[in-house]
Amino acid sequence: MSLLSIGTIAYDDVFTPYGEARMIEAGSCTYIAMAATYFVQPVQLVSVIGGDYNQEFLDDLQERGADLEGVEVVPDGKSFFWAGRYHDNMMGRDTLETQLNVLADFNPKLPQSYRNTDYVMLGNLSPQVQMTVIEQMETRPKLLALDTMNFWMDIAMDELKQVLKRIDMLIINDEEARQLSGELSLLKAAAKIVEMGPEILVIKKGEHGALLFKGDRVFSAPALLLPKVVDPTGAGDTFAGGLMAFLAGTDDTSFDNLKRAVIHGSAMASFVVEDFGTRRMQNLDAAQIRGRVQQFVDLMKVDV
Amino acid sequence: MSLLSIGTIAYDDVFTPYGEARMIEAGSCTYIAMAATYFVQPVQLVSVIGGDYNQEFLDDLQERGADLEGVEVVPDGKSFFWAGRYHDNMMGRDTLETQLNVLADFNPKLPQSYRNTDYVMLGNLSPQVQMTVIEQMETRPKLLALDTMNFWMDIAMDELKQVLKRIDMLIINDEEARQLSGELSLLKAAAKIVEMGPEILVIKKGEHGALLFKGDRVFSAPALLLPKVVDPTGAGDTFAGGLMAFLAGTDDTSFDNLKRAVIHGSAMASFVVEDFGTRRMQNLDAAQIRGRVQQFVDLMKVDV
Repeated sequence: MSLLSIGTIAYDDVFTPYGEARMIEAGSCTYIAMAATYFVQPVQLVSVIGGDYNQEFLDDLQERGADLEGVEVVPDGKSFFWAGRYHDNMMGRDTLETQLNVLADFNPKLPQSYRNTDYVMLGNLSPQVQMTVIEQMETRPKLLALDTMNFWMDIAMDELKQVLKRIDMLIINDEEARQLSGELSLLKAAAKIVEMGPEILVIKKGEHGALLFKGDRVFSAPALLLPKVVDPTGAGDTFAGGLMAFLAGTDDTSFDNLKRAVIHGSAMASFVVEDFGTRRMQNLDAAQIRGRVQQFVDLMKVDV
Repeated sequence: MSLLSIGTIAYDDVFTPYGEARMIEAGSCTYIAMAATYFVQPVQLVSVIGGDYNQEFLDDLQERGADLEGVEVVPDGKSFFWAGRYHDNMMGRDTLETQLNVLADFNPKLPQSYRNTDYVMLGNLSPQVQMTVIEQMETRPKLLALDTMNFWMDIAMDELKQVLKRIDMLIINDEEARQLSGELSLLKAAAKIVEMGPEILVIKKGEHGALLFKGDRVFSAPALLLPKVVDPTGAGDTFAGGLMAFLAGTDDTSFDNLKRAVIHGSAMASFVVEDFGTRRMQNLDAAQIRGRVQQFVDLMKVDV
């Protein structure tokens, strides 16, 4: 099995109460790939970068099992750049700067070898760009998952709704679920969102865990309690990457396995926030990941 | 076994986006008693009311298994009154009015029959009043639990810290845990709070469930997803009442049973918010409660 992922490969400047990191390798596709390659290979990436991107980092990604054939390089262009500062309580952040650069004209072309992949993760990009990927698939993926954000709901709701009709699973946060559905109750929100298209809905709640909905079944995954969150950037992408890669690696989309996938995605997200950028994910091993997964299981073990 | 509970017996006016209810029977002791009598009897109440309180409601409480010997009646006095309005998103509320009335001079006297009770719930009142109850106990309770709020941290932190040294279990919300400890991470907050006295800590997270800490063990209980929350008032007291009464009824404070108690408290809280005041709790039966508990268990069932 393999996983196809579209998203950004970016440079970030991140400022938090614990310090700062500048020009670190980031972006949704990067976080997804770093998490996903622990569970499935290859992870086929679709993105765009400028000639300025760190070749050593890209080589490392490739060694981990990422397929970079779908990453377009614009030699004279600059890579997407984002800078943000987290609030003192780490619960919110302000964007300091966004330079779209090569992302402004991104028109993804899927290599032939990507067009029959069964598991597809459409990372957070404009619904139009996400749709072009769907339309280039030659066979209908087994599982087509999508991430989006309130920004696209504000400026491209109609296009987003067209994409929602085509996907199997939507992965968004609680605030986005409320905005998309117009419902305060996440139970009602989930019911409305499922009517828009995706059979499966995952609602990320940050430090409060995640919810999984499919049909009338619901699973509530806790969040691990961490002594310190250094940098929350990319936690959602890492979660989605781990989740989708676990599904692709096991090739099983039953509800029981979806629950396991949510826990594995949560475990990867719990690692990534412990350091800036993707640093914490660079040297994990299977035992560490299993140990973290077990911590989640222990957190919710109850015998009533 | 029996449970002793101190707290307010009040009248509330509550305004929510779903409607309003005026002069309803409320207060921490009332919510605790309504939830607790489903699991243990008698529930010995310590509170104060004016001559204006609804005798029919008190008679009903007594029939349910509440012992009202410790409820002081001030014939010429008026009962404690609180009025509040919930915000449109139900996530916050404004206090419109507080009349302490008979509560202003409340100096609880424990009846002789209450002084050797093994399970004691000190509902949210001033630390000084909570301390006078502790001091009137003739034998050290098996489990002494306390609720408090940020108001007391603001104006009586020293007194609160004295009380914390004397108790076994603290039940507070996440915001209060952060204020009490000065820590953002709930894991660090829990470690600091346990050093202040209570061996067991329960952190309520409202729509995100609850956390239980004892030693190095942690349990994360989910919240049930409800289609509609009509009135969140008293949810925390109901949770604490159900939790403590479950422990008293089973007379077992092992970590496994503490987890069960958290689920039973959560189940009771999930009922109470479905209607104004204590209405939803007035006609529950054992099968309904078991069914609700099972919903919590199903929410977090995972086979990894």
